[in-house]
Order: sequence, then C-alpha cells, then structure tokens
Amino acid sequence: MKKDQHKLTTLAFDADDTLWVNEPIFSEAQERCKSIASQFMAPEDLNSKLYEIELKNLEYFGYGIKGFMLSMIETLIQVSDSNISARDVRKIIELGKEMIQHPVHLIEGVEDTLQTLGKDYELMIITKGDLFDQESKIARSGLGDLFDKMEIVSDKTPEHYSRVLAKYQIPIDNMCMIGNSLKSDILPICALGGHAIHIPFHTTWVHERVEPHHTEGKKYYELADITLVPDLIRNLGSQ
Amino acid sequence: MKKDQHKLTTLAFDADDTLWVNEPIFSEAQERCKSIASQFMAPEDLNSKLYEIELKNLEYFGYGIKGFMLSMIETLIQVSDSNISARDVRKIIELGKEMIQHPVHLIEGVEDTLQTLGKDYELMIITKGDLFDQESKIARSGLGDLFDKMEIVSDKTPEHYSRVLAKYQIPIDNMCMIGNSLKSDILPICALGGHAIHIPFHTTWVHERVEPHHTEGKKYYELADITLVPDLIRNLGSQ
Repeated sequence: MKKDQHKLTTLAFDADDTLWVNEPIFSEAQERCKSIASQFMAPEDLNSKLYEIELKNLEYFGYGIKGFMLSMIETLIQVSDSNISARDVRKIIELGKEMIQHPVHLIEGVEDTLQTLGKDYELMIITKGDLFDQESKIARSGLGDLFDKMEIVSDKTPEHYSRVLAKYQIPIDNMCMIGNSLKSDILPICALGGHAIHIPFHTTWVHERVEPHHTEGKKYYELADITLVPDLIRNLGSQ
Repeated sequence: MKKDQHKLTTLAFDADDTLWVNEPIFSEAQERCKSIASQFMAPEDLNSKLYEIELKNLEYFGYGIKGFMLSMIETLIQVSDSNISARDVRKIIELGKEMIQHPVHLIEGVEDTLQTLGKDYELMIITKGDLFDQESKIARSGLGDLFDKMEIVSDKTPEHYSRVLAKYQIPIDNMCMIGNSLKSDILPICALGGHAIHIPFHTTWVHERVEPHHTEGKKYYELADITLVPDLIRNLGSQ
C-alpha cells in the first residue's frame, strides 16, 4: 500500500501552446494593433507600451482575450493622445472576435499521445484564462472526450494547484503536470514537490537525451515534444 | 440506507443578487453609458440597442463585466456612426474598472443564515460569469470560509449543473439550489428533478406563506428573503 501512495495515477496537461497553438494568435493580433498604432508612434515601441498596460490591467481583467482587447484599446487611446478613431477601435473589437473564433490547431502528435496515455492514466486539463474562451477551445479541439477532468483556473500559483488537487483528493505524488510554461506549469508544481515535464512551445534546439533539470533544488524534466511523454512516464513509473 | 439517498446534504447558492448586490452595479453603469450616448440618440433607445448587441456578443464573450464593457463600446461606436470620441471610449473602460472594483455589498441576513445552515449542511456556491471577477468577489465578500465548495460556470443549463454534481458525486436528490434567477437557478434544477428555492432579488410583494410553485409539472419554492431558508429546509427534511 505504501508504494501505491507514490504511484503516478494522473497526468495533468496545460492547454494553450501545450495541446494547441495559442501564442501566435496573440502575436499576430499584436502585429495588427501595431500597424494601427503606427499613425501615432514608432511601431517598434508598441510592444513595450502594450505590455505595460496589460500588466497594469491584470489585476482588473485577469488573463484572456477580452482583457487583451480592452488593453489594446486602452493602449491605442493612450499612445494617440485620445486621437484614435472609433473606426480603429472597432477594428480592435473585430480583431478580438476573430481571435476568439480562431480555429483550434492541435500541436502535432497530441491526439495520438493522449490516446496512448489515456489507457493507463487519468488525464486532466489544467488551463489558465478566461472560462468561456477556454471551454469553447476545449470543445472545438475535439479532445474533450479524452480527458477525465478539466479545470480552468484564474491563475497558476501553487495555491491554485493545491486547491485543484484537494478538490479531487489527488496526492501531489500521484500526478505529473505537463506544460510549456516554466512559470505557470512547472515551477509551482516543483514548489509543491510534484512531478513536472516542461515542453517548450518553440523548440529551437532539441535535447537528445532526457535530462532532469533543477530549479531551487527541485527536479523537473524537459522534452522536445509531447510524443516523448509516454516513454518518460514509463521510466518515471519504474523508478 | 435507502432513505439516506434522498437526504438533503448540500445547499448550493447562486452568488450575484442572491448573496450580494450585483444588478444595480450594471444598471448604474448602463445609465452612465446612456448619458454618453445621448449626444447621438434618444437616451431611452440605448437600453434596447445595448441589449441587442449584448445578446449578439454572448457567443463571443459569455457573461461578465469585460464582455459588458466591450458591448458598451461597440454600441457607442454603432449608435454614433463611428463618431464617438476616444475620450468617451476611455470613460467606458474606466467605468468597467470601477464596476470590477465595486465593493461587494452582502444582502441582509446572508452571513447569519449561512452560518446557521453551515452547521447541518455542506454549503456550495454555483455562480455564472467571469472566472476572475467571480473569484475576486467571493474573496472580497468575506464569505469564502463558509463554503465547502465553489464552482464558477460559464452558463447554467441542466448540463452545467449535471457536470458539477457528477464532479462531486452528489445525487440530485441530496442538493437544493437557492437563487434569484428563475431562468438560471431554478428551472434547470427543476428540469433535473431537484429541489430549488427561488428568492427574487427585488421583492415588490411578499409571500406571507411558503407555497410551492409549479413549472412544467415541477415544484419549487419561493421565499421573500434568505433568512427564511433554514425553516423551509427543516420542513423539507422532515417530509
């Protein structure tokens, strides 16, 4: 029985940029916002200005496309010294609606890998952001049936993860979190003493061997892509 | 054992306009939007125009303040034939931020009633809307510790309720939903065959006696205010 307490039972996946492409949708929108802003400023300054306003607005809006839309509008008002036209504001609203309706493109290998893993493990999504938007993406991804549990959280701190684990009475030792963001998916899990696998979204280089990484004395794994997860999990299980 | 299967164990509360005041915050914002719109239209026409755009935007934005802000901006652009100024758009963004930060005013009797009910029942919040905003209101309400479970859902259809009940393995017979909205809190629960108590937010008349109401053959109760819940629940339990 003692051994079972440490047995891996649950694999939790981040969604945006782990299961499907997300960041490029924001980057592309930001490019279009930059082109609107270019009437009023050097376009290369838009990114830092927008980021400043996004950060300030995080406490009001949280994460997600609607907050991003409002921050883009606020940025354009500010950089134009209130000279931005209603037509340009409308372009941002239309742009945001396009983002919300953007087709969900799965990252290569995701569906097969989840099907393989689902035979032996309980699969879960833990994703951050806007409830309505994330639910819509899960539905449109076609992956919904592969997951036993789905949790949409407003942020990914150790406390948020603890709450989810407590809700389902999953001991931290029994789960492994898999995601593309060190800050949101890996470090909070390491802080709780759990297993984590980091899969960077844009892999400019490939680790040929699986090597444990360390952060503040905690170990996590890094993989080049999601198709490598089943092998690593098998090895973790036999440790 | 058979009897226990039908024992009431869980009381689930809606939050907005059931535990705390919400609707007046939206009405007040709408009045301010109306005053901005009055440059371009008969102010009395604003409500229906805004409502039309809100409904259309529901499929993009879902419920919540951020979607409401974006719909107000879109409405002002439309009714002004793209002549609304950036300064007025900024006013809407500021107005929205005020709404988000609005102090949470508990409805009279809520805290005492929850403390009484919490001695005998598991208490739960099931609220619809923006994840970030609802979490912030629960935290600021000071009621968080009185609830055993909290679920923020993107909509309140029978399917949404079924999913929440399945997640916690609560049989429908063992729970009672309490809320101010017939459409969101009462009818979906009736459709599932569960117990429901309707507490209208603006009670212009008071039921002096507790009478069961009926909708499509299903029974629910109506109370004038939340302080009457413990007595009704006691009677339900002894039926």
